[in-house]
Amino acid sequence: MRAIPVAPLKQSALMTRLVMKFGGTSVANIERIRNVARHVQREVAAGYDVAVVVSAMSGKTNELVGWCKEGAALYDNREYDAVVASGEQVTSGLLAIVLQDMGLKARSWQGWQIPIRTSDAHGSARIESIDPAGLVAGFARGEVAVIAGFQGIHAQSGRLTTLGRGGSDTSAVAIAAALHADRCDIYTDVDGVYTTDPRIVPKAKRLDRVVFEEMLEMASLGSKVLQVRSVEVAMVHKVKTFVRSSFDDPSDPKPGTLICDEEDIVEQQVVTGIAYSKDEAQITLRGVADKPGVAAAIFVPLAEANINVDMIIQVVSDDARTTDLTFTVPSAEYERARAILEAGREAIGYAGLTGATDVVKVSAIGIGMRSHAGVAARAFKALADKGINIRAITTSEIKFSVLIDAEYTELAVRTLHTLYGLDKA
Amino acid sequence: MRAIPVAPLKQSALMTRLVMKFGGTSVANIERIRNVARHVQREVAAGYDVAVVVSAMSGKTNELVGWCKEGAALYDNREYDAVVASGEQVTSGLLAIVLQDMGLKARSWQGWQIPIRTSDAHGSARIESIDPAGLVAGFARGEVAVIAGFQGIHAQSGRLTTLGRGGSDTSAVAIAAALHADRCDIYTDVDGVYTTDPRIVPKAKRLDRVVFEEMLEMASLGSKVLQVRSVEVAMVHKVKTFVRSSFDDPSDPKPGTLICDEEDIVEQQVVTGIAYSKDEAQITLRGVADKPGVAAAIFVPLAEANINVDMIIQVVSDDARTTDLTFTVPSAEYERARAILEAGREAIGYAGLTGATDVVKVSAIGIGMRSHAGVAARAFKALADKGINIRAITTSEIKFSVLIDAEYTELAVRTLHTLYGLDKA
Repeated sequence: MRAIPVAPLKQSALMTRLVMKFGGTSVANIERIRNVARHVQREVAAGYDVAVVVSAMSGKTNELVGWCKEGAALYDNREYDAVVASGEQVTSGLLAIVLQDMGLKARSWQGWQIPIRTSDAHGSARIESIDPAGLVAGFARGEVAVIAGFQGIHAQSGRLTTLGRGGSDTSAVAIAAALHADRCDIYTDVDGVYTTDPRIVPKAKRLDRVVFEEMLEMASLGSKVLQVRSVEVAMVHKVKTFVRSSFDDPSDPKPGTLICDEEDIVEQQVVTGIAYSKDEAQITLRGVADKPGVAAAIFVPLAEANINVDMIIQVVSDDARTTDLTFTVPSAEYERARAILEAGREAIGYAGLTGATDVVKVSAIGIGMRSHAGVAARAFKALADKGINIRAITTSEIKFSVLIDAEYTELAVRTLHTLYGLDKA
Repeated sequence: MRAIPVAPLKQSALMTRLVMKFGGTSVANIERIRNVARHVQREVAAGYDVAVVVSAMSGKTNELVGWCKEGAALYDNREYDAVVASGEQVTSGLLAIVLQDMGLKARSWQGWQIPIRTSDAHGSARIESIDPAGLVAGFARGEVAVIAGFQGIHAQSGRLTTLGRGGSDTSAVAIAAALHADRCDIYTDVDGVYTTDPRIVPKAKRLDRVVFEEMLEMASLGSKVLQVRSVEVAMVHKVKTFVRSSFDDPSDPKPGTLICDEEDIVEQQVVTGIAYSKDEAQITLRGVADKPGVAAAIFVPLAEANINVDMIIQVVSDDARTTDLTFTVPSAEYERARAILEAGREAIGYAGLTGATDVVKVSAIGIGMRSHAGVAARAFKALADKGINIRAITTSEIKFSVLIDAEYTELAVRTLHTLYGLDKA
């Protein structure tokens, strides 16, 4: 991936800047915003120049999105961006007011005021560049910069953009890179990254450190802690990123989980975490002619409709002239994918189409897999021993995923968590 | 007052542009926004290039202001502006979405995108200039411009500003001036300007036309139909402004009330309307030394505290060396004004301070007063006949006001409405 251009650091600013990011539940009302301000106050007292990135108050973005959908089934993403960017604008102003009330200098910054320049992919724009000059000038005046997350501006059109759900994480990490910040603290409603979802496995452990590549896979594979893109940006720019709790006592906070480079990890586990995602649907095409061009006939129309195809398996049938093809799509796209495939039946040439939405993808992630053979094979056996049928498998250097029936989700997660020694203290 | 600089009109655009403004109750939810869109659709079908100015959904601005107050007793008006400007941003995007859903081209414009440049008097900024080029380019592409009202930007600091409560009216009229629009239609929850409040006088009549100067006085004296500043701008730039109902059937709307120049009025009444304001409080200083400099000792500190003093009457007392001084202040400033005067007691030198908040100012307005003597005198007699005590009086060329006990409000309004022949069809 491409890096965001970052200006060289002046020596004078070395190691004194900090980016703190607070999500929707942390700023849900003025009481909680005051708690956020206490966290900021602590870091200012510790000598940091602080940039705080805030999300919209919890529930607000959903309310705004709901109005857009009520307005039109197919709404203009440019207008969607104008509507939903307002949520972060509100929080940025309110936190600045509360910080000032505590005696700190502070001012709010909208994405377009900094500016944070993005692509014109409205609704899920990518940050292209950030000009830190205004923020730095504010630091020189002793100001805390309170930045509306999630937002940017497309420079050519001058229109507001947003970075997709969870985009404030990416705002924070990208700003940390642009400011050459000492670190980026992502405050959330959990106190770090866990070996798996503690609601499923009470023995799940908070990890002190996770390698960027692992975190990237975890975020991609269902862990909701960080937006995927934010981990990419942190990795490329080597931003020292912590995931920690905003509900800690501001005067005695815990460090949380550090997302870091591989060389910063002392003791490496083979598997670091187990993730699962319910946002999967399976489609199987039976009796597909086994000839060149058929894969293109199936997958090109889906790609053109922006439907992301994930796991793909092909089984040669008895007669050896046709195959069965199974793949997964995001469950939100399931109906649309079926409709496209049914419309293309003649061009593709298949005997039957079946599908399932009650499936789940369970994944094990760990950079230790690179140097250990047979890690996935142990899982297939363990799951089979529990009577869990595997519908599809994908593997990469540092993770593997299995698609199973949704009703086995908890059992599979617990089985793998125990198998790879993650239950132990 | 100073005019907003307006670029000369190109002949090609003559008489084809229209500004429509919709207030908070007209855009309270998507259903009502759809109704607004039907009004817009009608005018587009009639051949107009349309700029629509919208307020925040009703209740939203109060919610946002409430959070600011909860954040700090004395909040930074720059941050207040960032917070409250978000309400109009939401509505502008939503109306653009709904218009597009009806098959019209439309895009939202924030104040800073146009830009609408204002002073830096955050919270009640004044428009300094509007660049219509972007809107006009949009018209050339067949787009309806959906403009967030109430907002602007201070060019030097790049910070968001707002124009004060009711400021969207002023946005609309100023944009109409900048666009050389054919007219500016202010859609509201009433169908025009009335001779007085119909809730008090059921016989109150909708006026077909009101002269700018009269409307200015009505707005200043308690009529809530238009923001005072919007009438000033309309008057200076001679913007043909209609007040009309957004709840009319969009396919068969009524024209409402035209605010116009004096020469456009055919049949002039002596009194056009009766207004009243409950936002008044009375302060009386007794036994004030009748010597030079005493008025300054009283009124300079109040002015410095931004407290607007309105009616002032001075009564020489029996000993002729001291006077009693009565004046009014906005009721919201009553306690603050008392505190300032009590603190300055020694410097001013007075025997006693009394006050009352249960008072109301009733006013009669009409440009016909200029050419008719004794108009106010008739009122004093009529009110005395009903047993209503007049606490203070102010007059100008085209209006007079009386301060009376609040409990007589309805009686006084009805008495004057009848006296000046406004009950008649």
